[in-house]
Amino acid sequence: MHQLEGPLATVRHIRLRDLPPAALLRADASDPQIAEAVAAVEQASGIVIATPIYKAAYSGLLKVFLDLLPQFALAGKIVLPCATGGSLAHVLALDYGLRPVLQSMGARHIVQSQFVLEPHLKIEGDSLSVDDVTGATLLEAIYHFRCALGHAPPHDQLGHPRPERADGTASG
Amino acid sequence: MHQLEGPLATVRHIRLRDLPPAALLRADASDPQIAEAVAAVEQASGIVIATPIYKAAYSGLLKVFLDLLPQFALAGKIVLPCATGGSLAHVLALDYGLRPVLQSMGARHIVQSQFVLEPHLKIEGDSLSVDDVTGATLLEAIYHFRCALGHAPPHDQLGHPRPERADGTASG
Amino acid sequence: MHQLEGPLATVRHIRLRDLPPAALLRADASDPQIAEAVAAVEQASGIVIATPIYKAAYSGLLKVFLDLLPQFALAGKIVLPCATGGSLAHVLALDYGLRPVLQSMGARHIVQSQFVLEPHLKIEGDSLSVDDVTGATLLEAIYHFRCALGHAPPHDQLGHPRPERADGTASG
Amino acid sequence: MHQLEGPLATVRHIRLRDLPPAALLRADASDPQIAEAVAAVEQASGIVIATPIYKAAYSGLLKVFLDLLPQFALAGKIVLPCATGGSLAHVLALDYGLRPVLQSMGARHIVQSQFVLEPHLKIEGDSLSVDDVTGATLLEAIYHFRCALGHAPPHDQLGHPRPERADGTASG
Repeated sequence: MHQLEGPLATVRHIRLRDLPPAALLRADASDPQIAEAVAAVEQASGIVIATPIYKAAYSGLLKVFLDLLPQFALAGKIVLPCATGGSLAHVLALDYGLRPVLQSMGARHIVQSQFVLEPHLKIEGDSLSVDDVTGATLLEAIYHFRCALGHAPPHDQLGHPRPERADGTASG
Repeated sequence: MHQLEGPLATVRHIRLRDLPPAALLRADASDPQIAEAVAAVEQASGIVIATPIYKAAYSGLLKVFLDLLPQFALAGKIVLPCATGGSLAHVLALDYGLRPVLQSMGARHIVQSQFVLEPHLKIEGDSLSVDDVTGATLLEAIYHFRCALGHAPPHDQLGHPRPERADGTASG
Repeated sequence: MHQLEGPLATVRHIRLRDLPPAALLRADASDPQIAEAVAAVEQASGIVIATPIYKAAYSGLLKVFLDLLPQFALAGKIVLPCATGGSLAHVLALDYGLRPVLQSMGARHIVQSQFVLEPHLKIEGDSLSVDDVTGATLLEAIYHFRCALGHAPPHDQLGHPRPERADGTASG
Repeated sequence: MHQLEGPLATVRHIRLRDLPPAALLRADASDPQIAEAVAAVEQASGIVIATPIYKAAYSGLLKVFLDLLPQFALAGKIVLPCATGGSLAHVLALDYGLRPVLQSMGARHIVQSQFVLEPHLKIEGDSLSVDDVTGATLLEAIYHFRCALGHAPPHDQLGHPRPERADGTASG
């Protein structure tokens, strides 16, 4: 998460799994937790979306959240789509499946999407780590995401990969 | 619903909206209502899937249900995908968005999908009706669905369109 | 090719690469070779389509041929889509990319698509062979394709895999 | 075309239909006209791609051209995808069908795609005009394209819509 931070950015992580299920499925924006998540999306300049790939597409949980947002909730925003999957065979699910949805929500710029193979991820308790190659790839993606946002660090300050968490505003 | 019925078919309608939200989002197959819905899919030879189109794709609710089914839950089955949408601009969401998901679940035969424009639908209380042209199109689709299932009525017994409900095993 | 043959089937192989380029790109159906290929599609009950995956989708050559066919050229027909690709990462290109196109042409039944990794193919001169596992998978696919056509051999006559050629009515 | 021009931009229009058919289908980059078109793409900072929608997807002609370009021919480039189609029902073909292809070619930023209904186009001889509403929409799209390129004119100099041609580096 700290790779996303910097003098110009505040970062928030919304775990969709922690939102109240009934309100989420009813798209009940009067629920305080839902309302707060919707407001966080509204205020963000950039959004990292992380989802597992199930049945050749993004998770239903992610889509339930996207469904309750306004039609053009991503207007003017920069988006970095990320996914984890058990097989390389799911790579195209991001660009063929998720990207048209995000595009329909008016996203200004959806940067190159990132697919991480599950064997390259390690989950210990609440923390998530990736191997070095994956880490470097994600750092590069974050760099381009920050460039699109207009507040990239100088490239030589990227430092060594410290990919402790793949975070984002919405993980479904 | 009675258009789907016949000497060879028993029809069940599962309203995904009536399943328990927390169990649904946790993919908790030990919940009795979820378990029963999963069993109904398992036992069916044919499945009509009905979803609204939101954000250029099927509903999150539908995907949440598909996500909790086994990977090849549609193996050997005939599927008729249906959607309602506010604009013709969403027609391709069924074939580009939903069909690859159903295909990945091993469906044996997914017949031509049906898109119904919302202005052609009338919802009164719990009942749903469509205009005559839409009704005739849906009857034709049901005829092909029943042919694929191997128990089509003789074509001349289709009778007049009586499209009182667009029903299915799963509506999300 | 002989796996597709049988007492009920005549098989033809159209190599799109052999059609006259200028007539193909102009969609000139008055060209005798083009006219003959279009007629072959029209007369076929089932069509095997084989394409390499380039740039995350079917080949342009295949689409050029599909573009010159009538809008509903696949109405009533059974289709088996096949692709070769250099990486598993392209698998979904068939179901997300090609299937919606074939569906829009009215195909009655598009059976499960087949993806073959290029390292599993051997090309020697004009003949094409695949390894044993791939061969068995393709034979199974051909069996389902023939079932959909209504003239499957008894399953126990499938014999041993003899996958000397991945043939089809159209290979692009 | 002059809407794309300005102090910082030189614009070229490549009509794919004018490239030599045999060399195009053989992906023969040694052909001088093909070589020149490939070089033009290589040198461009931004590319407008225009295609009709046939059979629920981009034209085969366009894909034939994309196929002969290097895998990452769009790396670092800004792309504006445009299409014409006979029905609103084809709108999603751009984002579901074409965008993943362009994304796989490494495009840095693909701005919102533009779909023009054929009844809103007028073709007289070699010149192409659009009605006022479509013209204003296209001008807005060009403005965002130029912003992404880093050389947008001040918004108040957009002037009145003068959409005489929908031009681009590649029209297929």
